[in-house]
Amino acid sequence: MTDSSFVVRLSCRNRPGIVSAFASSLFQAGFNILDSQQFDDPDSDRFFVRIVFNRTQATTEADVRALMQPIVDSFGMEITIRDQRNRRRVLLLASKSDHCLADLLYRWHTGELEMDIVGIVSNHPRSVYEHLEFGNIPFHYLPVERDRKHEQEAQIWRVVEASKPDLVVLARYMQILSTDLTRKLAGRCINIHHSFLPGFKGAKPYHQACARGVKIIGATAHYVTEDLDEGPIIEQDVERITHRDMPDQLVRKGRDIECRVLARAVRYHLEDRVLLNGSKTVVFPE
Amino acid sequence: MTDSSFVVRLSCRNRPGIVSAFASSLFQAGFNILDSQQFDDPDSDRFFVRIVFNRTQATTEADVRALMQPIVDSFGMEITIRDQRNRRRVLLLASKSDHCLADLLYRWHTGELEMDIVGIVSNHPRSVYEHLEFGNIPFHYLPVERDRKHEQEAQIWRVVEASKPDLVVLARYMQILSTDLTRKLAGRCINIHHSFLPGFKGAKPYHQACARGVKIIGATAHYVTEDLDEGPIIEQDVERITHRDMPDQLVRKGRDIECRVLARAVRYHLEDRVLLNGSKTVVFPE
Amino acid sequence: MTDSSFVVRLSCRNRPGIVSAFASSLFQAGFNILDSQQFDDPDSDRFFVRIVFNRTQATTEADVRALMQPIVDSFGMEITIRDQRNRRRVLLLASKSDHCLADLLYRWHTGELEMDIVGIVSNHPRSVYEHLEFGNIPFHYLPVERDRKHEQEAQIWRVVEASKPDLVVLARYMQILSTDLTRKLAGRCINIHHSFLPGFKGAKPYHQACARGVKIIGATAHYVTEDLDEGPIIEQDVERITHRDMPDQLVRKGRDIECRVLARAVRYHLEDRVLLNGSKTVVFPE
Amino acid sequence: MTDSSFVVRLSCRNRPGIVSAFASSLFQAGFNILDSQQFDDPDSDRFFVRIVFNRTQATTEADVRALMQPIVDSFGMEITIRDQRNRRRVLLLASKSDHCLADLLYRWHTGELEMDIVGIVSNHPRSVYEHLEFGNIPFHYLPVERDRKHEQEAQIWRVVEASKPDLVVLARYMQILSTDLTRKLAGRCINIHHSFLPGFKGAKPYHQACARGVKIIGATAHYVTEDLDEGPIIEQDVERITHRDMPDQLVRKGRDIECRVLARAVRYHLEDRVLLNGSKTVVFPE
Repeated sequence: MTDSSFVVRLSCRNRPGIVSAFASSLFQAGFNILDSQQFDDPDSDRFFVRIVFNRTQATTEADVRALMQPIVDSFGMEITIRDQRNRRRVLLLASKSDHCLADLLYRWHTGELEMDIVGIVSNHPRSVYEHLEFGNIPFHYLPVERDRKHEQEAQIWRVVEASKPDLVVLARYMQILSTDLTRKLAGRCINIHHSFLPGFKGAKPYHQACARGVKIIGATAHYVTEDLDEGPIIEQDVERITHRDMPDQLVRKGRDIECRVLARAVRYHLEDRVLLNGSKTVVFPE
Repeated sequence: MTDSSFVVRLSCRNRPGIVSAFASSLFQAGFNILDSQQFDDPDSDRFFVRIVFNRTQATTEADVRALMQPIVDSFGMEITIRDQRNRRRVLLLASKSDHCLADLLYRWHTGELEMDIVGIVSNHPRSVYEHLEFGNIPFHYLPVERDRKHEQEAQIWRVVEASKPDLVVLARYMQILSTDLTRKLAGRCINIHHSFLPGFKGAKPYHQACARGVKIIGATAHYVTEDLDEGPIIEQDVERITHRDMPDQLVRKGRDIECRVLARAVRYHLEDRVLLNGSKTVVFPE
Repeated sequence: MTDSSFVVRLSCRNRPGIVSAFASSLFQAGFNILDSQQFDDPDSDRFFVRIVFNRTQATTEADVRALMQPIVDSFGMEITIRDQRNRRRVLLLASKSDHCLADLLYRWHTGELEMDIVGIVSNHPRSVYEHLEFGNIPFHYLPVERDRKHEQEAQIWRVVEASKPDLVVLARYMQILSTDLTRKLAGRCINIHHSFLPGFKGAKPYHQACARGVKIIGATAHYVTEDLDEGPIIEQDVERITHRDMPDQLVRKGRDIECRVLARAVRYHLEDRVLLNGSKTVVFPE
Repeated sequence: MTDSSFVVRLSCRNRPGIVSAFASSLFQAGFNILDSQQFDDPDSDRFFVRIVFNRTQATTEADVRALMQPIVDSFGMEITIRDQRNRRRVLLLASKSDHCLADLLYRWHTGELEMDIVGIVSNHPRSVYEHLEFGNIPFHYLPVERDRKHEQEAQIWRVVEASKPDLVVLARYMQILSTDLTRKLAGRCINIHHSFLPGFKGAKPYHQACARGVKIIGATAHYVTEDLDEGPIIEQDVERITHRDMPDQLVRKGRDIECRVLARAVRYHLEDRVLLNGSKTVVFPE
């Protein structure tokens, strides 16, 4: 497709006339609406929309922004506009358990995840990932030393500043980020936690799950905030277990859940399907 | 809520400007859009919308129809309009296995299914359902006699004509309707088939499933057409089984699946969430 | 089947020779093993077995007990023996939300749950359940009055003493039992909690779930202990929700989950599939 | 663990005394039973057992076979015996869609699948898999030329004869094997079909599923027989779809299902959990 195709996310206080204003404006400018989803939260009284539209003539994000601006101002909207040809830049952080890393790389390779991977950061050396083909992706070995975590985080931040990711993915990175770094990455850092939150926060959730005797385990992908495992949830999934499953089996079964939950959350983010709604998310389905 | 609230389903060939025309027209008439979902089928090149809207002043379906008519004509739309206070009239057909009947009655009692049950038809006498409280709902015992099925169907049709249902639900009715009757009820008759279609059509699907050794069974709710078990699918669900499950266990496990699949399909229909798209359905989610 | 068929549950410290001792003893006494499942918990070093067996000659539970006693003594086993023709006596406690009550009654009616219901206790009068057919089951209206909860519990206990239930089911009873009563009913009282424990303990779990923004909700059936919502879990299940689901929708969706989770837990208990393993359960599958 | 640990699968016509004979024999020989699962099929009147046991003294498969032989002869049993330290030899066949191949390789790398991969066969050249790290695994490029499929199959058979696999996995190999080859590989060749069988056999099942308008798609792992997509089913799984999912999306969603279904089936086979029961399977759970 050589046409310009755009995806717009917007939210504002709910008022009559929002859809009408948008649809009319787009129609008059020669755009065709390909998809439109909306949500009116009775709790927060906020209105959320995701619209995808295109037109045959050459168009830039600036053009769309100029078109939208009067409506945005009039309704006091928060808005994002993206030309769908502009792939998002993504930085991956991983640790020793590399199943999510391997999974994201594979989905990127097949084109399922449309993104540019601008780097891989790990607290383990490249040799740990010999079975994985990184191609041309820059690899940054940033070991965490006792009492020098602060310095390592400063190095991460320099990688972020140099590679300019739109999204940072903690692909089972297993290190708790400082309040400072979580704030800098607010709204653009996704973590996968290996439990069905809010159950089993913190360390060793599969051991916690086994000890409690639950019959189903899960994983949760969420935006990282300064409150550990408390950020807005993007996606969750679960699987049934039995009394026969010891923590080792839970770790194995959990890997599958983690991979698919994180991959979905990343894709929803890349496709501008996720809007923040206070401490929650609106996720417009495919 | 004392306001008039309306739900509109419409479909037409896809063309630019549909949403804009609708949204502008509704906005100018003082309506507030509460929900709007759309689907643009690239295959059939048809466009489907479900919109819910209200306004504070007294409004009738006729008012809304008058407002919409120019747009409907201009785009060649199929449209349905319903004042959400107008509950649908539903006729239930059941047989000896009454789990779906009991389930629908309970959901009607709690208000989960907003409908008026205008009658219950069975080929078994009232005494078979002694454990069920039918309240004031008319019960029609219409036994099926060998070689006289045609006459029994004529009786059913008389009940339909007298009770004027908007929807007929075959709640495990277990009798195959004639081509003639299926045509008369086209688009307003939902059946529950106790298999995950297209697998195991026809009789004794749980026995078929057991013989084939599948690891998951399911149920399918679909609109009835003259082609047995081939009508447009509204909803399906499944459950895992094991080699230990003999047909009796499948029948038991299946009951739960059948109840929830049929109840969902009926609710989707009652809430105008289902649009026909050739031999398939568009089901706008809650 | 006129044969005597028995189900035995036993647990003991893990030692070699348990299965051999049992199997030989049963074989020599002319029994045929119909099913046998075992679990060896590496954590607690305990061994759990459930065996079903029959023989053609007339046999009583006492006969089986006499046969087993030497083995039980030798291995220091906990054992239960039940002639499968002896149906369990069950007392149901319900409150205003009667979906679990209605569901259990229906499953009892169809024979899916093989039990004798010895009574229904509610803190609401019989008229609240007019849509339900109780047949000959004794109904006990035991209202809870402010500051007199203790007296109401004493009345419940008198019903228990008179009706001698093997199992008490809190079918969304919604009243917290006192420590004293939970202790008296230890191991024979099942509660359904309307969240996926350990998330959202206590009151209004669906509101908690909505506020936290989870993407999946669930229900948990567990044995009641003095620690609220902390008893050994028997069964859990979940369903996917979206940002569109407000607490009212969660309550509706949750009803379906609660019904099937509680029904399964009750059936597992009635069929002697559940063995306590400290604060957890072993549940031998069908 | 340096002990010898063995897994035995056996099946025979159901008769009293099987468990007793086995358990006594093992106990007297100093073995400890670690796990035991059985199934008595009322339909085929056959009895199936999987037993895992160990002892501290050095033991070979031949020792166990000698111990078992009298019982095997007496009951007319089919039996397999495996020292769990003997990893199975596995040959992977793949085609252009390499998600199952990549997934199996990763699970082999992590040790989740305990097997020795003795070769990878593809009808595409090595360069197609540049993003995958094959390590030392022999790769065989065996292109399929029009009208010369027979010769290519002969080459596959030579690879089989040379590499002596215990299991051949068709990891989305996409070529239909001849009757001759399927017979040679009977009971040791697993295929993944990308539909929920028996629905949508043959080519392009996701397109078939989209055309039929099903609401759930699935994948099926089965032993290959000469009847296409009719072999004994080992494992199935499903995922929910909507009217918005076109065949491309189904292909994407299906990849995840295929990977996990095939991986589970392979693991069940490797762990001797699968027993053939006519055209069905008995799969003893983990």
